[in-house]
Amino acid sequence: MAVYTEVLDTELAAFLGEYNLGRLLAYKGIAEGVENSNFFVHAEAGFFILTLYEKRVALGDLPYFLGLMEHLAGHGLVCPQPVKTRSGALLGQLAGKPAAVVTFLEGVSSRHPTVSQCAALGEALAKLHQAGADFAGHRRNALSLDAWPSLNAQAGKDSESVQAGLAAFIDKELAFLDARWPKDLPQGVIHADLFPDNVLFLGDRMSGLIDFYFACNDFLAYDLAVCLNAWCFEPDFSYNITKGRALMTAYESTRQLSPDEAAALPILARGAALRFALTRLVDWLNVPPGALVKPKDPLDYVKRLRFHQKIADAHELGLPR
Amino acid sequence: MAVYTEVLDTELAAFLGEYNLGRLLAYKGIAEGVENSNFFVHAEAGFFILTLYEKRVALGDLPYFLGLMEHLAGHGLVCPQPVKTRSGALLGQLAGKPAAVVTFLEGVSSRHPTVSQCAALGEALAKLHQAGADFAGHRRNALSLDAWPSLNAQAGKDSESVQAGLAAFIDKELAFLDARWPKDLPQGVIHADLFPDNVLFLGDRMSGLIDFYFACNDFLAYDLAVCLNAWCFEPDFSYNITKGRALMTAYESTRQLSPDEAAALPILARGAALRFALTRLVDWLNVPPGALVKPKDPLDYVKRLRFHQKIADAHELGLPR
Repeated sequence: MAVYTEVLDTELAAFLGEYNLGRLLAYKGIAEGVENSNFFVHAEAGFFILTLYEKRVALGDLPYFLGLMEHLAGHGLVCPQPVKTRSGALLGQLAGKPAAVVTFLEGVSSRHPTVSQCAALGEALAKLHQAGADFAGHRRNALSLDAWPSLNAQAGKDSESVQAGLAAFIDKELAFLDARWPKDLPQGVIHADLFPDNVLFLGDRMSGLIDFYFACNDFLAYDLAVCLNAWCFEPDFSYNITKGRALMTAYESTRQLSPDEAAALPILARGAALRFALTRLVDWLNVPPGALVKPKDPLDYVKRLRFHQKIADAHELGLPR
Repeated sequence: MAVYTEVLDTELAAFLGEYNLGRLLAYKGIAEGVENSNFFVHAEAGFFILTLYEKRVALGDLPYFLGLMEHLAGHGLVCPQPVKTRSGALLGQLAGKPAAVVTFLEGVSSRHPTVSQCAALGEALAKLHQAGADFAGHRRNALSLDAWPSLNAQAGKDSESVQAGLAAFIDKELAFLDARWPKDLPQGVIHADLFPDNVLFLGDRMSGLIDFYFACNDFLAYDLAVCLNAWCFEPDFSYNITKGRALMTAYESTRQLSPDEAAALPILARGAALRFALTRLVDWLNVPPGALVKPKDPLDYVKRLRFHQKIADAHELGLPR
């Protein structure tokens, strides 16, 4: 819930003067996104999203994110298309912050994705992986295996206040994953945060992928594991194998998993669950007093992790034979 | 900065099913408004604002506000037009809250209104007063003279923590206004909160009046006094008589003030300044710890009040002779 930076009408009109978008007709701050300030902008040329990048986003990463969206849109993926200024820049400066304008996409995020929506997501994910194959940029995954011990150290013994035994549980899982994490799977551009809030639908038709600000280069199958965790568990944290099968069948209709990827999927799903458990845990233990944004419960991802610890192979997650 | 109530995609689609607006295409929570939760909604029929009324708005007042907007829009005033359900209702229920859909207006609020914008506002205000003349609803002004002593009592001696001598200053002003407040001026529907944020412009052309949730029946000239205070002071709290003259000249080109109204204007301006000083003072002294919304400085309106205490007649505010 966030507009951290106020933008004056006159400032915005001057900023938009650098673009070929015509006159400013309306703008409203958007109450979502916890990393950046977002505005809905109507100009004569159409509808756009203006993002002001706040301090949690590394300035050096912005060309990767914006360049990636441009690359993907150019390869037919429906995602926000960065709009260039007359002089060809993707990034400008507004109210003292780096700022970019992207196209507005129609569609609505699904809070409780249906089986058909899981299938649509699987197909879109595979197309994203294919479209990213010849993207020149590179950004390492700053929230993968090598980052988890320091997140765990940040939480420290306070984890025990969230659930008794949690600290030891995480320590043990970290050791397990460190020993078994795959080293040689197909890599490429991954979204890394393709939760239902970041996928737009018109009915069961996928109408856009958004929020590429965790995108990076990593194992493609890890991205699939993130999606299985985010899309295929029910509100009671039971795993819905029908959704998993729909998602992976649709994925494989566009991009077939290699035998190594299929074999690694259960451990990737454990890692993907631990990654979100850890970042949520750190946020949970560091809520500023009186904050309006309620942090997400880290235990939701601990429950997913406990499920995956009992999984022996990817078919139990719905991978088609 | 506010979306207090979360609305699920499926809930919203079901709610909109009661209206003739076609399919839901997109919606975003809007980060403005401190009283209610607002959403920008795109449906096949066009662009709309969905408002969920939170507990600060009295349910019994909603038919007045919505009926007034409908009445004014029907009389040619550009304001949000409430959209009716198929069964003719202006008010529905969504996520457990009373909810209404109104048309979306193009335009941008001016942070630093120009002289031309002050003139446009004056004309719009007079048209609002004329258009409201035959509106059947009635709502007393809950924040006028009789409410100020209890607001002052809520602030109490804590006023002194804001500025030394403030409590006595307010007590004295209350006694003065109580003795001199006019009793017999032309009454009608007033907006009562027509600050620059509630007026939309495309350039210098007024494109809409919004936020009628303080509207009530009171002296028409009091509404003009609220506007003079909100539009004609510069950031250093000096009064800009050029703006005051432009505003009132434009107002009088549509609706002439009576001699009594003109004579009462300085005291109405003092009352209008005290009203906002008091509500801001109460909010200022009751900020929840860690709140994201910074309260507005009550002293901004104390400064306006001190200016008006030295004014003998309305010509010093720019009223044309």
